[in-house]
Amino acid sequence: MKAAVVPHAGARWELRDVATPQPGPGQVLVRVRASGLCHNDLLLTDGSFPFPARDDVVVGHEAAGDVVAVGAGVTTRKVGDRVGATWVQGTCGECDYCKLNLPLTGQSGMNCARPTMTGITTQGTHAEYAAVTAESTVLLPDQLSYEQAAPVLCAGYTAWSALRAADPKPHERVAVLGIGGLGHLAVQFSRACGFDTVAITRSPDKHDLARELGADTVVGDGAELLAAGGADVILVTGTSYEAATDALKGLRVNGRMVLATINPEGSFTIDARSPLWAKRQQIIGATHNGLHQLAEALRLVADGKATPRIETFPKENIAEAVAAAGKGDLRFRAVITF
Amino acid sequence: MKAAVVPHAGARWELRDVATPQPGPGQVLVRVRASGLCHNDLLLTDGSFPFPARDDVVVGHEAAGDVVAVGAGVTTRKVGDRVGATWVQGTCGECDYCKLNLPLTGQSGMNCARPTMTGITTQGTHAEYAAVTAESTVLLPDQLSYEQAAPVLCAGYTAWSALRAADPKPHERVAVLGIGGLGHLAVQFSRACGFDTVAITRSPDKHDLARELGADTVVGDGAELLAAGGADVILVTGTSYEAATDALKGLRVNGRMVLATINPEGSFTIDARSPLWAKRQQIIGATHNGLHQLAEALRLVADGKATPRIETFPKENIAEAVAAAGKGDLRFRAVITF
Amino acid sequence: MKAAVVPHAGARWELRDVATPQPGPGQVLVRVRASGLCHNDLLLTDGSFPFPARDDVVVGHEAAGDVVAVGAGVTTRKVGDRVGATWVQGTCGECDYCKLNLPLTGQSGMNCARPTMTGITTQGTHAEYAAVTAESTVLLPDQLSYEQAAPVLCAGYTAWSALRAADPKPHERVAVLGIGGLGHLAVQFSRACGFDTVAITRSPDKHDLARELGADTVVGDGAELLAAGGADVILVTGTSYEAATDALKGLRVNGRMVLATINPEGSFTIDARSPLWAKRQQIIGATHNGLHQLAEALRLVADGKATPRIETFPKENIAEAVAAAGKGDLRFRAVITF
Amino acid sequence: MKAAVVPHAGARWELRDVATPQPGPGQVLVRVRASGLCHNDLLLTDGSFPFPARDDVVVGHEAAGDVVAVGAGVTTRKVGDRVGATWVQGTCGECDYCKLNLPLTGQSGMNCARPTMTGITTQGTHAEYAAVTAESTVLLPDQLSYEQAAPVLCAGYTAWSALRAADPKPHERVAVLGIGGLGHLAVQFSRACGFDTVAITRSPDKHDLARELGADTVVGDGAELLAAGGADVILVTGTSYEAATDALKGLRVNGRMVLATINPEGSFTIDARSPLWAKRQQIIGATHNGLHQLAEALRLVADGKATPRIETFPKENIAEAVAAAGKGDLRFRAVITF
Repeated sequence: MKAAVVPHAGARWELRDVATPQPGPGQVLVRVRASGLCHNDLLLTDGSFPFPARDDVVVGHEAAGDVVAVGAGVTTRKVGDRVGATWVQGTCGECDYCKLNLPLTGQSGMNCARPTMTGITTQGTHAEYAAVTAESTVLLPDQLSYEQAAPVLCAGYTAWSALRAADPKPHERVAVLGIGGLGHLAVQFSRACGFDTVAITRSPDKHDLARELGADTVVGDGAELLAAGGADVILVTGTSYEAATDALKGLRVNGRMVLATINPEGSFTIDARSPLWAKRQQIIGATHNGLHQLAEALRLVADGKATPRIETFPKENIAEAVAAAGKGDLRFRAVITF
Repeated sequence: MKAAVVPHAGARWELRDVATPQPGPGQVLVRVRASGLCHNDLLLTDGSFPFPARDDVVVGHEAAGDVVAVGAGVTTRKVGDRVGATWVQGTCGECDYCKLNLPLTGQSGMNCARPTMTGITTQGTHAEYAAVTAESTVLLPDQLSYEQAAPVLCAGYTAWSALRAADPKPHERVAVLGIGGLGHLAVQFSRACGFDTVAITRSPDKHDLARELGADTVVGDGAELLAAGGADVILVTGTSYEAATDALKGLRVNGRMVLATINPEGSFTIDARSPLWAKRQQIIGATHNGLHQLAEALRLVADGKATPRIETFPKENIAEAVAAAGKGDLRFRAVITF
Repeated sequence: MKAAVVPHAGARWELRDVATPQPGPGQVLVRVRASGLCHNDLLLTDGSFPFPARDDVVVGHEAAGDVVAVGAGVTTRKVGDRVGATWVQGTCGECDYCKLNLPLTGQSGMNCARPTMTGITTQGTHAEYAAVTAESTVLLPDQLSYEQAAPVLCAGYTAWSALRAADPKPHERVAVLGIGGLGHLAVQFSRACGFDTVAITRSPDKHDLARELGADTVVGDGAELLAAGGADVILVTGTSYEAATDALKGLRVNGRMVLATINPEGSFTIDARSPLWAKRQQIIGATHNGLHQLAEALRLVADGKATPRIETFPKENIAEAVAAAGKGDLRFRAVITF
Repeated sequence: MKAAVVPHAGARWELRDVATPQPGPGQVLVRVRASGLCHNDLLLTDGSFPFPARDDVVVGHEAAGDVVAVGAGVTTRKVGDRVGATWVQGTCGECDYCKLNLPLTGQSGMNCARPTMTGITTQGTHAEYAAVTAESTVLLPDQLSYEQAAPVLCAGYTAWSALRAADPKPHERVAVLGIGGLGHLAVQFSRACGFDTVAITRSPDKHDLARELGADTVVGDGAELLAAGGADVILVTGTSYEAATDALKGLRVNGRMVLATINPEGSFTIDARSPLWAKRQQIIGATHNGLHQLAEALRLVADGKATPRIETFPKENIAEAVAAAGKGDLRFRAVITF
């Protein structure tokens, strides 16, 4: 089969012929139809991702497709199921983290000492076929296309988990910092759920777009957010921690800022003179917070309440997609079709 | 191997020779060392349990033992692991409940349309060997004996989940209604976690015992609880809903009562004249609330902070254990050794 | 001044001339413009309300008007402020409840042994003037009329507190049982906050109305709710506990039912065979849950996201309003203008 | 009467004769018996406190004493009540913060645009008498001495609020960073509530002391905390944000760090390479979180579960107390008796 292989950290992606995998016990074989290109794929291959990847890894970890074979012992999936594959396929079972018995996949499974991570420690989804553990797959709603589902499986899952981690109350105001792959979904999710929604973006050319996505208000930075009344929740979906620090200016009393993205360099600084303690604010780390939240996000997209904006690339053009992503030219998510 | 078989609902238990199971893909074979006798085993076999069991079922669902073989595809357990087996081994994956993607086991997996339930829909643990899904097992802390572990795997898990579901705040007062298999553990858990603890029991002969278990205060009913200052949390561990209704008299403003046991008949009544609404009280249903909470309970017992009181019966005497349980003669939990 | 007086429990209301009150220290004098008629006013005067009222009490406890004088020591309100008056004006400060130091007003202040309750233990708001504690008043948003504000101060406050007590998550489905004074606001609040909203009403003639208010789905009872997919939250806004028990059939796994109304007779029953424990459901008591939640509800109405449906009666016709309310003829809230 | 006056920011404290205050409407006059010296008193007078104080202010804001007179309109306190006075006495009622209707005192009342703050904007408690709003006082438990109560009214309140803000679960492990005025109480509170408690201190001479206070484990920094198994909660009670950043190394998955102290300079930095997002950790700001939590803290001290360690100074020696505090020579809290 054809698959996108990264020979080693820092090397170019290659579309190679590799052996088609077979599903082992507990696995399903997925005929991948659409596989989203995640910013972490790029970090991974340029060596700045905080987890090391194996050489010659097939990258990709947000894919939608069909189950075409099931391995021994699989009772929860069958041939013909339309499924999504996710980032963490399993944990080692015996490290200190695993001994906590937190749910096996989804909820910070990457804290395991030896997790099985799609496209990092095991074969990824930028390929015609992928063998993945049945328990790490989710069923796709009937009316949801593969191309629309793919970016939900990581980007949408992250954005929705961030909103859920903030635990917004019905009347609260939600701001989204950054209007890219995650942010354009976060704005839509927030609006679809009835929250008064603010987009924060330093790109004037994204103002119209943010409104089109449903933002009630668009501001350029923390000072403007404050002038516009502030927000109870700020979802940081970009990778600039400097912008996040600035946005804190507009966080209301009892407000929560959620950090949901990987920024391998830099750090996040809270200014003591805008006091977190007196305002009783919280900074919350979030990631993929459990497969039930992924099901919620897929449902919102299937119901048409949020629509990933994608550019599709046939597998032959994957290098072009990578190049566009590297230059920040994508609006908003590249999806590779196989 | 020897196993306790119930030919059909309402029939006597029989210790029979049955075929030793083999671990299928995703399963481990456990050499059972100790298997606790749960009240639900009795409900199940007299036909009053709300789920139907298959005929000739081997009952039992709280067992501790050693992994002696692993099936294909199992990566999280190995031969020699000391493990506990639990009640829900798996879910169907495709019913409406499963589509929510809630954690596969533990957390109300029994809401699945077709769950795999140990000792009900599949072979149970009152047997020399049991083949169970690896993901439904938990590792036992090193210093914890099989006999002490067994009752934690259902009774202790239930009692601890009830306390966790109440979400007690550090300074709150916790009452435990019923000082039996679950209650004697709930009192110990509460006390070990520093809560001012009240035991509520209508059996005067259990007063000394309750104090010995750590109760700071012992009362006979809701009126006495009220006179003693009330409680913020009441854990209902017995099966009398009439006693639970009575105990509500002693629930404080903002208090929570947790219902954690199966009572196949009767119903729970809230008196509108002792108003739930004005006191902002909650009635909370709880069950096994996730394997991470089971790990927490096992840790408390392994650390000596709570000690199940058990009567052990060799497998040949299982009928005697069942008879004692049926008459309410056990203090507090029968454990069958295999 | 003119005021609606109830000579004693069970007697007819009379519009009498009584002395105009003067604001004492810590009080403001409000020139009442609009005062809502609450179901509890009727319970109070027919003697079935669970708190005893004093004789010759001026009833009413949800009023909007203008501050026309301030008593000694008042620093938080000034003449000309447009304010709302609320149900609990103060607590005794020294009973067991008060020693908990929970917020003085709003949050279940009625649990105080000797609360100052508007229209029950002290003069109410169906009058041209009312002297109330400054700290129990709230500022009205500028764009909100007195007539629209009045029903929010008790009915809307109750409905919103119920929704907040359920702590609905962004994607959840909310059902409202009963489409009367509280329920017609609960439906609007739920819809305005983006929740998929179900109205449950046994009155076929209210189906169109419920849809007009924003309900996405309308059903007749618990079985129909279940058939329609169930709900994560059920807000009980009517006074029939029998209907509430029935509605439980449609409560989803992990669902919450909120009881927010006074039903002086009867009781609430949970059927043990539809098990609360296995479904991990909660029954939550709620009332006016704090003045910050009242501010939230007033903001939603001021912003046009919910609109109380009212029938206004000039003070001379108050007996007519009471008669209509007693017969259940009001759609949905009578507001008396003074 | 005698009172400690600070002529202006940066000036020495003087024990002066000033006019004895009289209680206005809504106020009580307290004969101060014991008034604790808070680190913020020092920040205030050296000009580094983030709120400006008026000139010639009588400082002090944690005092215990007797009500000797009540002003007009006070119904919740009476002559002879033993009370504690607190930091925030009232809010303006009409600023944007006040329009949220959050509880008037305690819970971040200092976010009001014009709060009445004891010892900052109005007369403080380092004086023989203080007139304070009745609603900002709390009743002292009978068995609690004035000297023991005083440090609870700010230091203990802060430490307990920090623990409550972390919302520790019954089995969790709590670490306390800094073993000074706040920290020595935080360790005791945590231990009294049953938590496995770790003290983090860079002062080797405090190790024995920390154990004496109840710490189960004592470590020197974040690396040692990690080596000792980490903690679910870290309460930052010192003023070094550098030490707090370091301590993050030992915060477990799903852990919470609470920042509860005023550090007018510097800032708090989260290292992105020890990722908050993957570990789903939270940084939580806390302060005095509501008078009900103060009541809880007073109860624990009255019950002997925690004991403030104090050095008492007669009012004549207040300068000596200030000097000792400035040099960090106090173990742990100076209490001035009047």
